[in-house]
Amino acid sequence: MTGIFLSLEGGEGVGKSTQLRRLAGALEARGIDVLVTREPGGSDGAEAIRSLLMQGDVARWSPHAETLLFAAARADHVERTIRPALGTGRWVLCDRYVDSTRAYQGAQGIDDAAILALHGFGAKGLLPDRTLLLDLPVADGTVRAIGRDAGVADRFAARGSNFHDAVRTTFHGIAAAEPERVRVIDATGTPETVTDRLIAALADLLP
Amino acid sequence: MTGIFLSLEGGEGVGKSTQLRRLAGALEARGIDVLVTREPGGSDGAEAIRSLLMQGDVARWSPHAETLLFAAARADHVERTIRPALGTGRWVLCDRYVDSTRAYQGAQGIDDAAILALHGFGAKGLLPDRTLLLDLPVADGTVRAIGRDAGVADRFAARGSNFHDAVRTTFHGIAAAEPERVRVIDATGTPETVTDRLIAALADLLP
Ligand SMILES: Nc1ncnc2c1ncn2[C@@H]1O[C@H](COP(=O)(O)OP(=O)(O)O)[C@@H](O)[C@H]1O
Ligand SMILES: Nc1ncnc2c1ncn2[C@@H]1O[C@H](COP(=O)(O)OP(=O)(O)O)[C@@H](O)[C@H]1O
Ligand SMILES: [Mg+2]
Ligand SMILES: [Mg+2]
Repeated sequence: MTGIFLSLEGGEGVGKSTQLRRLAGALEARGIDVLVTREPGGSDGAEAIRSLLMQGDVARWSPHAETLLFAAARADHVERTIRPALGTGRWVLCDRYVDSTRAYQGAQGIDDAAILALHGFGAKGLLPDRTLLLDLPVADGTVRAIGRDAGVADRFAARGSNFHDAVRTTFHGIAAAEPERVRVIDATGTPETVTDRLIAALADLLP
Repeated sequence: MTGIFLSLEGGEGVGKSTQLRRLAGALEARGIDVLVTREPGGSDGAEAIRSLLMQGDVARWSPHAETLLFAAARADHVERTIRPALGTGRWVLCDRYVDSTRAYQGAQGIDDAAILALHGFGAKGLLPDRTLLLDLPVADGTVRAIGRDAGVADRFAARGSNFHDAVRTTFHGIAAAEPERVRVIDATGTPETVTDRLIAALADLLP
C-alpha cells in the first residue's frame, strides 16, 4: 500500500500555503491520512539547508551552487520524510517540489535536463502523482505576498518582475510538457473557489 | 597568466594540513604567491556548508545528500575563491578536493562517474594541475590523528578501519588511472623528508 504524492506549485503569493492547508482539511474530511510538508525543507537536514538558501544576499549563491543545494535538500527530504510516509499509505502534500527548481533555477539559466539529472541522482527521480500549479498574474501574486509579509522578502521573492515572469513561463512550459501530471489551476477568486478547483483536478485520484 | 592549482589528498592524519603549510612556505621562499585553502570550505558559502557536513551524527546525511552537499560547497569554492586566485596568477594549494569525494563517498557506494558529473555541473570539472596523494597505512594515520585531536572525531574520522581502508584503496585507484595528475607520496618519516618528496613531485612545475 502506497500513498499519493501531491505537490503544489506556483510563484510568490499565488496561494500555495493557503491551499495546502485547505486541501489537507478537505482530504482529512474524506478519511485520508495526510502529511503536509514543504520545500526547501521538510526534514531536519533539509530545513538546515533551507536556512542557507533563503537567507542572505540575493547573490549569496551562484545558480549552480544553489541548484546543488536544492538537490541535496530534496534528496534528504525524499529519503527521510516523503518516501517513509508514502510507504505507510499516507498522502503527502508538498508545498513546492522539483518543478520549483526547474522554474526558479531554470529562470537563471540552469539547464532543465541537468536539474532532472540531479533529481535522478539525489531522489531517484521521484515525481508527484499529481502537481497542482496555481496560476496567477505575477502582479496579483506580488500584491497578495506584500499583504502577507509586510515587505520582508526572501532571496527569491526579492527578485524583479522579469524574473518572476520567467518563472511563470517556465511553469507553463512544464505543464504543457507533462499534462497528465501537472494541472494548471486558476488561482484567482476566493480561497473557497480555488479549493473547489483543486478537488476537481484530483477527482480521478480520490477514493 | 594563470596560476598553478595543487591539491593535497589522503586519509585522516596522513599529514595533509602539516604539509600544506610547509609546502606553502617552500613555494613562497621561491617567490611564488600562494593561496592556501581547504575543503569542504574555502569560501563563505562553502564554510557554512562545511558545518552541516562535519558536525552531527555519522548518519546525519545519506551518501547521496552528502555527495550533493560536497558538490555545492565545491562549486562555491571554485567560483568564489579558486578561479579568481588562479586568474591573477597565484598558486592555489588546497587541503582536499574532488578526489576526497571520490574516495569517501565512493567508499559509501556512490558511483565515481556520478561524482564526476556533479563536479562537471558545479565546478565545470576543474581539476588540479597536480594532486599530491599522501600515503600512509591507515593505522599510522589514526595514531597521528589521535595525537592531534585528543579523541574528538568528525563525522568521517569517526568511521571504522574498514571504511578507511576502502578510502585508501580508492585513492590508489585514482592515482593509477591518472598517473600524470596524481602522484603517490610516501608519507612516512619526518615532516622534512615528506616535504622534500612533495617538492620533487613538483619539479616540472616549479619556475
Ligand atoms: N484566493 C485568495 N484571495 C485573496 N488572498 C489570498 C488568496 N489565497 C491566499 N491569499 C492570501 O495571499 C497571501 C499569499 O498566500 P500564500 O498561501 O501565503 O501564498 P504562497 O504560499 O503561494 O506564497 C496570504 O496572505 C494569503 O492569506
Ligand atoms: N611526518 C610526520 N611525522 C609524525 N607526525 C606528523 C607528521 N606529519 C604530521 N604529523 C602530525 O600528525 C598529526 C596529523 O597531521 P595533519 O597534518 O593534521 O594530518 P591531516 O591534515 O592529513 O589529517 C598532527 O598532529 C601532525 O603534527
Ligand atoms: Mg507559501
Ligand atoms: Mg587536516
